[in-house]
Amino acid sequence: MITATFLDEISHDIPSANWGRAEWARDFAAMRDAGIDTVVLIRAGYRDRATFDSRVLRARHPHLLVQDDLVRWFLDLAAEHGMGFWFGTYDSGEHWMQGDPESEARINRAFCDEFVERYGDHPALAGWYLCHEIHALDETALAVYGELSAHLKSLRDLPILISPYLQGPKQFATPKPLAEHVAEWRQVFARLRGRVDVVAFQDGNCEFRDLPEYLRLNAELAREHGMTCWSNVESFDRDVHIKFPPIAWAKLRFKMEAALQAGVDKLITFEWSHFMSPHSMFASARTLHARYTEWLAARG
Amino acid sequence: MITATFLDEISHDIPSANWGRAEWARDFAAMRDAGIDTVVLIRAGYRDRATFDSRVLRARHPHLLVQDDLVRWFLDLAAEHGMGFWFGTYDSGEHWMQGDPESEARINRAFCDEFVERYGDHPALAGWYLCHEIHALDETALAVYGELSAHLKSLRDLPILISPYLQGPKQFATPKPLAEHVAEWRQVFARLRGRVDVVAFQDGNCEFRDLPEYLRLNAELAREHGMTCWSNVESFDRDVHIKFPPIAWAKLRFKMEAALQAGVDKLITFEWSHFMSPHSMFASARTLHARYTEWLAARG
Amino acid sequence: MITATFLDEISHDIPSANWGRAEWARDFAAMRDAGIDTVVLIRAGYRDRATFDSRVLRARHPHLLVQDDLVRWFLDLAAEHGMGFWFGTYDSGEHWMQGDPESEARINRAFCDEFVERYGDHPALAGWYLCHEIHALDETALAVYGELSAHLKSLRDLPILISPYLQGPKQFATPKPLAEHVAEWRQVFARLRGRVDVVAFQDGNCEFRDLPEYLRLNAELAREHGMTCWSNVESFDRDVHIKFPPIAWAKLRFKMEAALQAGVDKLITFEWSHFMSPHSMFASARTLHARYTEWLAARG
Repeated sequence: MITATFLDEISHDIPSANWGRAEWARDFAAMRDAGIDTVVLIRAGYRDRATFDSRVLRARHPHLLVQDDLVRWFLDLAAEHGMGFWFGTYDSGEHWMQGDPESEARINRAFCDEFVERYGDHPALAGWYLCHEIHALDETALAVYGELSAHLKSLRDLPILISPYLQGPKQFATPKPLAEHVAEWRQVFARLRGRVDVVAFQDGNCEFRDLPEYLRLNAELAREHGMTCWSNVESFDRDVHIKFPPIAWAKLRFKMEAALQAGVDKLITFEWSHFMSPHSMFASARTLHARYTEWLAARG
Repeated sequence: MITATFLDEISHDIPSANWGRAEWARDFAAMRDAGIDTVVLIRAGYRDRATFDSRVLRARHPHLLVQDDLVRWFLDLAAEHGMGFWFGTYDSGEHWMQGDPESEARINRAFCDEFVERYGDHPALAGWYLCHEIHALDETALAVYGELSAHLKSLRDLPILISPYLQGPKQFATPKPLAEHVAEWRQVFARLRGRVDVVAFQDGNCEFRDLPEYLRLNAELAREHGMTCWSNVESFDRDVHIKFPPIAWAKLRFKMEAALQAGVDKLITFEWSHFMSPHSMFASARTLHARYTEWLAARG
Repeated sequence: MITATFLDEISHDIPSANWGRAEWARDFAAMRDAGIDTVVLIRAGYRDRATFDSRVLRARHPHLLVQDDLVRWFLDLAAEHGMGFWFGTYDSGEHWMQGDPESEARINRAFCDEFVERYGDHPALAGWYLCHEIHALDETALAVYGELSAHLKSLRDLPILISPYLQGPKQFATPKPLAEHVAEWRQVFARLRGRVDVVAFQDGNCEFRDLPEYLRLNAELAREHGMTCWSNVESFDRDVHIKFPPIAWAKLRFKMEAALQAGVDKLITFEWSHFMSPHSMFASARTLHARYTEWLAARG
C-alpha cells in the first residue's frame, strides 16, 4: 500500500536515530517485507550537514558534519532489495530563504555533479527529488526548480519529484481557503510542467475532514498538467505537544484510504524508519507497524 | 494503592501508543496485578475521533477517525479482570468552549443513548465520567453537567465522576490563591450536589509544597457536600520541556502519600498505560512501574 | 576519550529515568567499560528536590522530594569502579536569581557541612562542583563562588569545577560576538583565580563552525589563569523540536575531535546515562553508544 518512503537523513527537525550500517540494513529488509519499492533521500545535505563527505559542501563548510557514506549505503541497500533510490538535493538553509535562487542553484549544480561523478552509474539510481518545499507560488523556489531540473535531467534523464505542503491550519495562523489553494496551485502546476514529473503533497497540514477534497483536487491538477500524483502520507502526528511522535493508527489509515479514494498513483510516507518501522527508536512506531501489517494482511 | 486509572483513548494531547487487542489485554492483566479495580475512559470521543464507530458521531463527522471497538475491548477486559468500567462522555471541542451548553448536552445525550443501546447491559459498566474539565465556576460546563447527569442517571443509575484541575502556577500565568480557590469551589460544589457523586481533582498543577493543603481542603469540601473524594494522581511530569513524559518517582510517591494523608477515598491516576505500565511506550514508565511495585511490596 | 560524565539527578529540565539501585549499578559498570573515571553530580539539590534526605534542605522545604540516598549509591558505585565522585552543590532556584549571593552561600555552607558530616570520609570523594551556571560576568554568581569555594576547600581540599555556557545563538536572541566573549571571560577568569580549579565550558550553544575557535580561546584563557580546562561535550541535541533527545553521532564526534584539537585536558559529557548509555531510556542513546564504541575501537 505504502510503497515508498523518504529517508530522513539529514534530519532537519527530527532526532537522529544514530543508526549504523547494520541498523540500516535491517530496516531496508523490513521496508521490502512491507512492500516498499522506492526510497527517497529527503535531502543529501542541509546547511553544514551532509550524507556523504562532499568536496563541494566541504569547500563551503570546512567543518562539515558528516557520518559515514550514507548515500553509498542507501544505494547499495536499495539495489540489494530491488528498490529505486531517488536522490534529494542540497538545502543551503540560506539563499532560497533570502530570495537568491541563483546561488542556491549554483551550489546544487556543483553538488549534483559531484554526486553523479561518485554514484551516477549505480543501478539503483531511479530519480531526483527537489528538496526545497513550497506551499504557495514561491518565485524563488520555482526559479531553483527551473534551473535545477534542466541540469538534473542533463545529468541523468530520470523523473523529478517535489513534495509541497498545504497552507493548512495545523501549520499556519491564516490558512488558505480551498478555492484559493486551487487557483494558486493551478498557476504553480503550469509553471512546473516540463520541469517536475511527480508531485507528492504532504497530507498532514489540514483538518482530516478536508483531506479527501484536497487529495481529489490536487490529483486533478496534477493530471491536468501531465504529472504523476503521489500522496505523501505523513506517519508522524501533528496533533500533540511532542514534535513529533509516530501518528495514531486511525489517522494513518484514514489518510491512506482517502488517498486511494482520490485515485493517487502512489503512497509515499514521511517516513518509515522513525515512525512506522519495527526497528524504530520509538516504541509506538513498532506498534504502528504491527497495526499497519495486520491491516495489510486483512486486505489480502 | 492506586486502584483506578483513566484510559487515554481518545488521546487529546498525548501520543498514541498504537495498541491493538493483544497489547491492551496484556496491560489490563498488569493493571489487575497492581491492584487496579476501576478503569475510566477519559473520553469516548473528541471532535472527529471516537473509541467506537458511533452512528451519532459519524452523522456529525462523516470522516470519523475510529480504531476498532475500543469500548467493547475495554468493557470485556474489565469484566475479565473483575474491574468496573466508567464511560467518559463526548467532548465536541466546540460548543462548550463557545458558551453553548445546550448543543454540547444534546449531542452527548444522543451519543450516550447510543452507548447504552450498544453496551448498556455489559456487566462491567460501573459509572459515568463527565469529561468536560473545569478549573473554576464555569457556567457553561455546569449547565452541561446539569443536563447530562440527569440523563445519564435515567439511562443507568450509576455514580458520576468529574476530574477538575486547579488554577495553579504550573498551568496559569495568574494562579488563584488558595482562599479564593476554596471560596469559589464551595459554590461549585453546591452546584454539583445531586449531579455528581465523585470528584477527583488533578494533583499536578500546583507546587508540591501546596498540594497537601489543597488535598485536605478539597476533601473537606467534597464531604461537606455529600460527595466522594478521589485524588487524580497524575503520573506524567509537568516540570520538564517534553510534554509529557512519565513522572519522577519521588514526585509520584510524594503525591500519593499526601493524598492518603488527606484522607481521600481512592487514588486514580492519569494514566497507567502511557506513564506507569510495564508495557508502556516510554522506557521510564517501565522503571516507574518497578519503583512503584517495590514500594507497594515494602508497604506490605 | 570521554572520561567524565555528569550525573543528572536532580533532573532540572530532563525527564527522570526512574532508576533504582540496580539500574544505576548496571550503568556505572557500563561507564567504567567506556573508560569513565570521573562522575560529577550535577546538583545535590534543586529547590525542593534532593539527592539525599538532607536535614538542612528539609528545614527549608518540609515536603522535600527525595528518592533514596542517591549520593550514597553514587559514592559507593564510584568507589567500586575506581572512579572519583565530585559533589555538586545546591541550587535554591531563588536567591542567586534575585541578586542575593549571601543567602545562596549560607544555605549551601550548611548543606555542604551536612554532606561532609555524612559522606566526607568516603574514599571516592574527589572534587567539588559549583552548580551555579554562568554565561557572563555575573556578579551574584561570582560572589557565591567566592564564598563557597573558600568554605569547600576548608571542608576538604579538593579541586573545584564549574561549567559555564556561551551566550551563543542556540540559546540567546542576541548572541555575544567572539571578541566580546574573550574580553569578558578574561575578566571572569581573573576573578576565578584561586577559587576555581577546573573550567568546563558547555559546547552546545554555538554554531558548529565556531566551536573550534571557542574551544581554543577558552583553553588559552584557562591556562593564562592557571586553571585546568575540560570540555563539556553535550550528548543531547539542541537542533530539533524535542527538548532534548540524544545528539546525532556526527555532531558528537565533531565536538569531541574539536576539543581534542584545541588541547583541552579532559572531556566530560552532559550526560552519559540519559544520552549515551547502552541502558538509556532513549533508544537512540543506545545506538549512539554503539557508534561511540565503534569509534573508540577504530581509534585503537
